[in-house]
Order: sequence, then C-alpha cells, then structure tokens
Amino acid sequence: MINHISDLSHSLPTSVEALAKRLSKLHYADAVDIVNRLEFDDAVHVFVYLPIEYAIKLFDKPELQRSAKILEALPNEHAVSILNGMSADEATDVFQEMDNQTRQRLFAQLQPVTRTELKNLTSYPQHSAGALMTTEFIAVPSNYTVQHTLDYICEVERTRETVYTTYIVAPGTSELLSAISLRRLILAKPDDNVLDAAQHIKPVIITALTDREEVARLFRRYDLLSVPVVNGDKQVIGLVTVDDVLDAMTEEMNENTHRFGGMETIDQPYMRTNFLDMLKKRSGWLSILFIAEMFTATALQFFEGELEKAIVLALFLPLITSSGGNSGSQATSLIIRALALREITLKDWRKVITRELPTGLALGAILGIIGFIRIAVWQYTGIYDYGPHWPLIAFTIFCTLVAVVGFGSFIGSILPFVMKMLGFDPASASAPFIATFVDVTGIIIYFSFAAILLAGTLL
Amino acid sequence: MINHISDLSHSLPTSVEALAKRLSKLHYADAVDIVNRLEFDDAVHVFVYLPIEYAIKLFDKPELQRSAKILEALPNEHAVSILNGMSADEATDVFQEMDNQTRQRLFAQLQPVTRTELKNLTSYPQHSAGALMTTEFIAVPSNYTVQHTLDYICEVERTRETVYTTYIVAPGTSELLSAISLRRLILAKPDDNVLDAAQHIKPVIITALTDREEVARLFRRYDLLSVPVVNGDKQVIGLVTVDDVLDAMTEEMNENTHRFGGMETIDQPYMRTNFLDMLKKRSGWLSILFIAEMFTATALQFFEGELEKAIVLALFLPLITSSGGNSGSQATSLIIRALALREITLKDWRKVITRELPTGLALGAILGIIGFIRIAVWQYTGIYDYGPHWPLIAFTIFCTLVAVVGFGSFIGSILPFVMKMLGFDPASASAPFIATFVDVTGIIIYFSFAAILLAGTLL
Repeated sequence: MINHISDLSHSLPTSVEALAKRLSKLHYADAVDIVNRLEFDDAVHVFVYLPIEYAIKLFDKPELQRSAKILEALPNEHAVSILNGMSADEATDVFQEMDNQTRQRLFAQLQPVTRTELKNLTSYPQHSAGALMTTEFIAVPSNYTVQHTLDYICEVERTRETVYTTYIVAPGTSELLSAISLRRLILAKPDDNVLDAAQHIKPVIITALTDREEVARLFRRYDLLSVPVVNGDKQVIGLVTVDDVLDAMTEEMNENTHRFGGMETIDQPYMRTNFLDMLKKRSGWLSILFIAEMFTATALQFFEGELEKAIVLALFLPLITSSGGNSGSQATSLIIRALALREITLKDWRKVITRELPTGLALGAILGIIGFIRIAVWQYTGIYDYGPHWPLIAFTIFCTLVAVVGFGSFIGSILPFVMKMLGFDPASASAPFIATFVDVTGIIIYFSFAAILLAGTLL
Repeated sequence: MINHISDLSHSLPTSVEALAKRLSKLHYADAVDIVNRLEFDDAVHVFVYLPIEYAIKLFDKPELQRSAKILEALPNEHAVSILNGMSADEATDVFQEMDNQTRQRLFAQLQPVTRTELKNLTSYPQHSAGALMTTEFIAVPSNYTVQHTLDYICEVERTRETVYTTYIVAPGTSELLSAISLRRLILAKPDDNVLDAAQHIKPVIITALTDREEVARLFRRYDLLSVPVVNGDKQVIGLVTVDDVLDAMTEEMNENTHRFGGMETIDQPYMRTNFLDMLKKRSGWLSILFIAEMFTATALQFFEGELEKAIVLALFLPLITSSGGNSGSQATSLIIRALALREITLKDWRKVITRELPTGLALGAILGIIGFIRIAVWQYTGIYDYGPHWPLIAFTIFCTLVAVVGFGSFIGSILPFVMKMLGFDPASASAPFIATFVDVTGIIIYFSFAAILLAGTLL
C-alpha cells in the first residue's frame, strides 16, 4: 500500500504536492472548485497528498465532481479510509454513482458500522428525510450529568457532523425524551442532570419518510439547526442538518422552475449538460404539449365555415388564447406556492374556486374592456375597418375574454389540487400545461359566442 | 403603569391568564399560531400575562400577526421592554409597520443602544444583507484566552440570537481577524489564546449591501450557520443567521414563482389577500401582456389577404405560436436558474446562444416532423382534406416550426441576460412575457414561409 502511493508520487510533478499543501489552507468549497478544474489524473494525485482528514471533508461536499471516479482510481486503502470517514449521507450518494464492481469491492472492506449505515440509507425514497439524513448524531442516556455529556461530546466530536444538539434518551429503551443545545449545556451547572437542564418542550421530530419540503417548512417554522429522525419506537435513527435543508431547498427550487418551464428537471449545471441530454429532457414535454395543442387545429377545422365567412375572427385568435393562458398561469403559480407553504391544503379547493372564479371573471372584464376600446379606436380612426357590425364583433371579443380568462383562472387554480390528489407534485400543473389546456377550450368558447352574437349578421 | 395592567386584568376572564400559562409551555411557533387566531383584545391581554422573556421570543417570530398593533395597545412600559429585548432585525420590521405617532412615542423611550441599532438597520435596502442582519453578535479581542471567551459568552448569552460563532477582533481597531465556533472553543484548552485556537482560514464575510440571493449562495457553499457583516474598515457591524436565510430563500421562491406566473408578488398568505389587492396585483401585468399581444392582431391584419386565400393557414396558428412560447419558456427557466446559482454569469451570453440556438432548431425539427406526419396521416386517412397541395402545406408547417421554436429558445435564453444587464431580476423574463414576445414574431415567420413556399399554388 505504501509502495502503491510512492509509485504514484514517483511520476508526479512536484507541483501537485505543492498544490495539495496550498489547498489544505483554503475553505473546503474553494478547494473543491480548484480540484474540479484539474485534469482527472491530477485530481486523483492531489488526494494522495492531502491529509486524510481534509480529503474526507472535500468528499463530504456534494459539489465535488467525479468523486466516485476519483475514489475508484485512488489506492484501495486510501479510498476505504475516506469512505469510512465520510458523512453517511454523502457516502451513500457517492456509492450510488460507482460502477457495480468497484462498489462491491470497496463495500466489502468498509468498517461494519459504515456498511450498516450505507445499507440503511440507500433504502429511503428520494426527496424523503431518510435520503437527507446522516446517522452520526450525539445521544446520551437521561441519567448523565451536564459535565458527563460535555465530556462525551468532546470525545466523539471528530466523527459527528454537528455537535450543537444532543439527544437525551431513556437508558433502557433508547426512546427519545428530550434534546439539549450546546448553548444550554455550557450555561448549565456541571453537576446538574442533563434532562433537568434541557428545555421542557417536546423536541420537534420527523420520520425517515417525511417529505423534504415538509422538513424545510419545519426548519423555518421552529428556527432549527437540526432535527432528529425517529423510528416507530421513538428511537433516534439519524438527524437532518440545516445545510442539507438549504441544499434540498435549492434543488426543489430548480425542479420547480424547470417544471414550471415545461420540461424535465436538469440536475447538472447548465454548462455541463451535453447537447443530447438537453434535447432529451426538453423534447419529451415539448412534444407532449405539441400533440395536445394539435386539438386546436381540430377545433378550428370544426369552425372553418365560420372562419371563412368572417375572416376577421382569425385576427383575434392569438389574443384570446394567450389571455386565457396568462390568467391560468397566474392562478396556478399562486396556488402552487400556497400549497407548498401549507397556506392552503387539499380540503380548501372549494374556497379557492369561490375566490378564483370571480377574480378571473373580473380580470376578464378588464381585458374585455381594453379589447373593446381597441376595436372602437381602430374603427373610428380608420386604422382598420371591421365593417358595419364592428360593435357586435367588439362585444363578441368582450364576452369571450370574460369567459376565457375566467375559465383560465378556474383551471389554473384547480389543476394543482388535482395533481396533488393524484399523487403528483402540484408544480406539474405548469404554465405551458395550463395554457395548452385553455387554448382548445378558448377556441370553442370564442366561436360559440361568435355563433350566437354574430348570427344573422356576419355568420 | 402597574395600575394600567391591573385595570386591564380586572375586566378579563380568567381563561386568558390560563391560556398565557399554557402558551409558555409550547414551541414559540405553535404559540404564535394560537395567538394569531385570538380576537385582538384577547391577544393583547395574553401578552400582559406572559413572562416578558417569552413575550419577546414571540415578537421575534416574523409569523406573529398584528405585532405592531398589539405593541401599540399594550401598556407603554410593557411595549418598550419588549422592543428593547427583541432581535434588532425583527424590531426594525415591527417598527416600520407602526403608525408614525406611536413609533415616535415608543422610539423616544427605548434604550439608547436599541435606538442606534434601529436607526442603522432601517437604512439598508430591501433584499440586502443589511435588511436581514441582526446587530447582536459576540466579539472578543484577540488577546482573550479560551476560558475568558467562554465566560464572556455565558455572560452575554441572553441577549444574543446565536452564540455558536464568536468573532475575534484586533484590540485597537476592532478589525475582524478570525472567527471561532463554540465547537472549537469547548474542545480547546482553557488557557490557550483564542486566536490560536481558531481555524487558520479567513472567515467568509459579507457587506450590508450584499444581495440576499448571494448571501444564500454563500451559506450553501460554505455550510454556514451565520456570517459576519463587515463595514469598510473590516469591523463587524452585524451577522446574518441561517434561519433568516431560510426565510429569505422562501420569500425569493415565492417572488420567482409569482413573477414566473406573470404577476406581481403577493407577500401575504393566499387566503388573507383580499379580492381588490389580488385584482390589483394580477391585472397590471395581465393588461400589459394583453396590450403587447394585440400586435398579433395587427400582424394578422397585415396577412389578411393570405388568410382569405388559404384559410387552412389559420388552423395551425395556435399550434405554431404555442410551440414558440413553450420552447421559450423552457429556455428562460433554464437560464434564470443557472444565473441565480451562478453556474453562468453575464459574460457567458455568447456561449449560451451557441448552445440554445442549435438546441432550439433541433427541438423545432422534432416538432416539425410530428406536425408533418400529422398532416400526412389526416390527409391519407381522409380525416381532413388539405387539398392537392398538402405536402407544401406540411412543409411550410415544418419550416415554420424549426424557425419559431429556434427563435423561441433564442429569445428565452437571451432575455434573462438582457433583464440582468438592465438591472432587473432575470426572473422578470417570465414564461408569459417570452410567449407574448414570440407570438408576434411567430406569426410573421409563419406567413413569410407561407408566402415563399405556397406562392403560385395556394397563394
């Protein structure tokens, strides 16, 4: 093994060794940036020279690229030490990126405790607290004193992600009784019992299956730095720290924005996503929306007679469909956020409709009036001649806008509920999705009003 | 003053006193929820009975509603004690909601140190670190020992929002030299010099004018729990804690989603926004988009002759404009996120165009082929008869889709850059905005292709 490393260093320019020295004086995030920019071989060699504790910290940053590949290329023992030292949640992620053979080889050499942790963590669903949590928490039995607890913290500190909260458990059952912050610990008298020193408020807890959006909401609500994850027997099985919540929120923001843009989430940085991946992630939804939108052509074929008689109706087609889409887009963005923040829940759908429908009709009336005025002004100033029946045309546009914008708000507000009820993310009811839905309906509404209001004159 | 309180309690049902007792055993956030649901008078009276320390904690929660009004209604001395005890950042927010007279009355009675803090904090722009920060940080001169520092922390703990980071400053100039975590402090030897015990890595710092999105990025990047805000002389003037960053990120997420839905941000919970406010926030942008979209009518008037000759062209109008809008929406959502995460910066606009334009053209070709096949199938199966020149029509649709979807991707990717360059939030280049922009252009592209490809046959 020692031979292995010296073999490697033999062929290296001294600059890599010097670089490793420089790196260890930087913030981990800055060092990661530099390593990410290195050629692959140099990156591997840097890790040979870095102090193992520092190397572990770099692998603990999710921003480190090629981490699985680097581990595969590192001398075996080195890779195993890093994996044993890493945070269990990050190690799990790296493990999942490895090819099967390396994974099995390295896995067999890990410490038993690390192996168990990895096995447990890989079993939780994506976006659950289990997938975010780490298993390195600090727990003491409730018969400890404050000093005893502090001594224990100092003893295990090196292997723990956070030491700012200590869980107090029942000596026999390991059931979670309370939690005490380091802040309270250093203020308490050393001889006090740790349970007495803790705040007499039930700690906030989650389970491994709690959704990450709900986890984030709890962190915000209770100003938490970490939260314990408990099992059915109320035993602590891990903890989620605030830095993981920040990362999860950022991912959630990406996903929502991409979904809202009508595409699959791209979880790599924009510049590192290759052309074909990009095409794949975007063409799927774009094609589905396109095929759905084809119904507009079908609807228009149905009204071709009316179109031929009154070609003037075609002029306002994009104006009407886009207004319905825009009002739907407003409504869905409002409801998606309100659902995410739990300002409203599924059972509020009736209340939401009784708010959105009048709002939509009022917005439609505003646009309708603008549309009416536009036609009147064009007519009077002679910019365009809509013929002798122009007031009827303008009135058709007005009525259509009230109905289409009202309908857009209705659909935009109700579809996020439907998505949630069906078990999808409400954000799937994205603006392009709503717009497509409203376009077809908008055309039918438009020509229905025209057929009624213009019968005997233009049609 | 004592009279004042007893006057109040005289008229109270005992239940409010009992409620106050029950509240003080709950998490602050849960107690805030209960107080929010009380009648206004009861809410005021609850604060009369709550222990002052606990009352202060409740006022420190931004979720407490009617906080300014409750302070106005509380006995004078009580209100002043609460304001003196509150976190400076929250006190600033409450102060800004008060009517002018009460503000002046209460302000005059505050402790001088609170007055100075409030004056300073109100001067920072919205969305800046200054508006997020609190001034209650812990700093010790660099000649302190570890024990001396720990003693000092215990002494001032009650009045500090966080005690997990202590700033080490130069004794003469108060210049920030380093930072030490409570974790390192309890591990260090008591007699060690505090500066020696600190990590030998320059602390991450921000200024009061750093944008909150950048602050959030630094927290994620460096896994921070708090960050010091320094002035031009490198003196610490405050700190931003991670709970404020979580709140700011949530607000940012709301703003972006609402903006992306094509409306002004609504910063109140959905159910508490009244009808007129809702109408105001939504009608503005909806009207602007409507007026912009009117250019589609103008463009179509221009091509009225072509439309009359080949009414079949009208059938595909919504299909073409929506495809351009959808591809633009994808591109803008990608670029907005990439800019927010600093994956790309302003100077990358060229690189982005050279990626987005080919992607857009390829996506357009995919949709174009689907469109071509649709027309061919309808023609052969006899669902619709496009006439003898159907291959030309299908080819026109194909070419138009390539151009319009390509153009949509181009505009969608470049407008967020333009917005940022003009000093706006890139998220202002929302999907509805892009769609409107692309609709008019799409019509012109469509009829231009038709004029060329169908000349001599249909046109």
